[in-house]
Amino acid sequence: MNIIRKIFSKSRSNTDGIFFNSIEKILGFAPLDIEKYQKAFTHRSSNKTDRDGNPMNYERLEFLGDAMLSSVIAGYLFNKAPHGDEGYLTKMRSKIVSREHLNELGKDLNLIQFIDSKVPVQHFGDNIHGNIFEALIGAIYLDRGYVYCEKFINSRVILEYVDISRLEGKVISYKSLVIEWCQKEKKSFYFDIFEDNAIDGQRLFGVRLSIDEKVIAKARATSKKKAEEKASQRAYFAFQEKINKK
Amino acid sequence: MNIIRKIFSKSRSNTDGIFFNSIEKILGFAPLDIEKYQKAFTHRSSNKTDRDGNPMNYERLEFLGDAMLSSVIAGYLFNKAPHGDEGYLTKMRSKIVSREHLNELGKDLNLIQFIDSKVPVQHFGDNIHGNIFEALIGAIYLDRGYVYCEKFINSRVILEYVDISRLEGKVISYKSLVIEWCQKEKKSFYFDIFEDNAIDGQRLFGVRLSIDEKVIAKARATSKKKAEEKASQRAYFAFQEKINKK
Repeated sequence: MNIIRKIFSKSRSNTDGIFFNSIEKILGFAPLDIEKYQKAFTHRSSNKTDRDGNPMNYERLEFLGDAMLSSVIAGYLFNKAPHGDEGYLTKMRSKIVSREHLNELGKDLNLIQFIDSKVPVQHFGDNIHGNIFEALIGAIYLDRGYVYCEKFINSRVILEYVDISRLEGKVISYKSLVIEWCQKEKKSFYFDIFEDNAIDGQRLFGVRLSIDEKVIAKARATSKKKAEEKASQRAYFAFQEKINKK
Repeated sequence: MNIIRKIFSKSRSNTDGIFFNSIEKILGFAPLDIEKYQKAFTHRSSNKTDRDGNPMNYERLEFLGDAMLSSVIAGYLFNKAPHGDEGYLTKMRSKIVSREHLNELGKDLNLIQFIDSKVPVQHFGDNIHGNIFEALIGAIYLDRGYVYCEKFINSRVILEYVDISRLEGKVISYKSLVIEWCQKEKKSFYFDIFEDNAIDGQRLFGVRLSIDEKVIAKARATSKKKAEEKASQRAYFAFQEKINKK
């Protein structure tokens, strides 16, 4: 009996350790109170409650994370677009925090792998990805405060996804920008597409973009087209100065 | 000529000094960059522009302040109402940050006295009060960061105005609660109403609420009824434990 208990408690602490490490990797900093993050992935179907009998799931954290995300993006846009009036700032923000975009962010971080739910993952709609992404931001706020929220949103939302030109509709496709530039510069380019490890039935595609035989950007997304576009965007930012000079 | 210049610059720095002191009093802490607050009171009709030719008025700050207010209130409600689900939190927040409520907050701080506008104050609608209140919060964020925003909102919005019971509709009138309690306790009470100094055509009413011949709460508002209610609310909170015990 004792041995069984030991094995169980060992395996449980291993799981916790894995969760802690995965979250730390996603955040880019260490969680102080890992329980807050566990809650961010607890679906209402788990029927968990806290000590006071209140339901324990991510829905309240989602409310909190949504608010923090909105104000961090507001602060970013305010500084980034000194020419934009109130209407412009509002429009840009709603593009950045659109449901579709949040779902994409959650998917790309593969947050669904942590879900604690009695409903099979395949039964969830697309919005679960954005919801737990928001809940994760809520957990960061509770655990480490506004400045860490800002840090996380900056690295995971703004740096990776927010490009004012694209949001303004000035850039339609990074893939075509990159191809155009390569052709002009007589450089060879190649998109190497492969099916990536899928977790919980979620298919993912990886792309390696090589220019002149050198891999210069990698990306992973839920469709080939998205993965290509993302790799191209990264390449574009890497080469931006060169491209803009021409 | 020199004398005239001196007089002018003297009078100007006096005005700036008065503005600085007034803002410090409203904030409860010292501004670091007073220019940010000047912008918060600059109406578009002033036609001012910054060095780069961008319009300089409070509209962008309003966008920023609105976002900060929403997230501070979200954080407050999250902790204050552990029983409330996402829908409850959303509903409570929209009651707190309602247009009507923000206008009331701006009016009570008499922010309109600082407005820099070519439009006469009497021509503005009610929303100007809430708008510059939001812009002020935006200025605080830019000047001193999120934590000071939180501090200001806590003292000026939450402590003074937010009462979950009233927002939930459980308390209809503080005046009647206080009167009821006084009658039960056989205490005398008296509402002393007077017209307060009006600035820029804005009439204000003051109320002193005395219980057993002792002034226990004062309040100022744009109508007699509102001022009475506010004084009663303050008295209620002061006597809350006593009232609830009965």
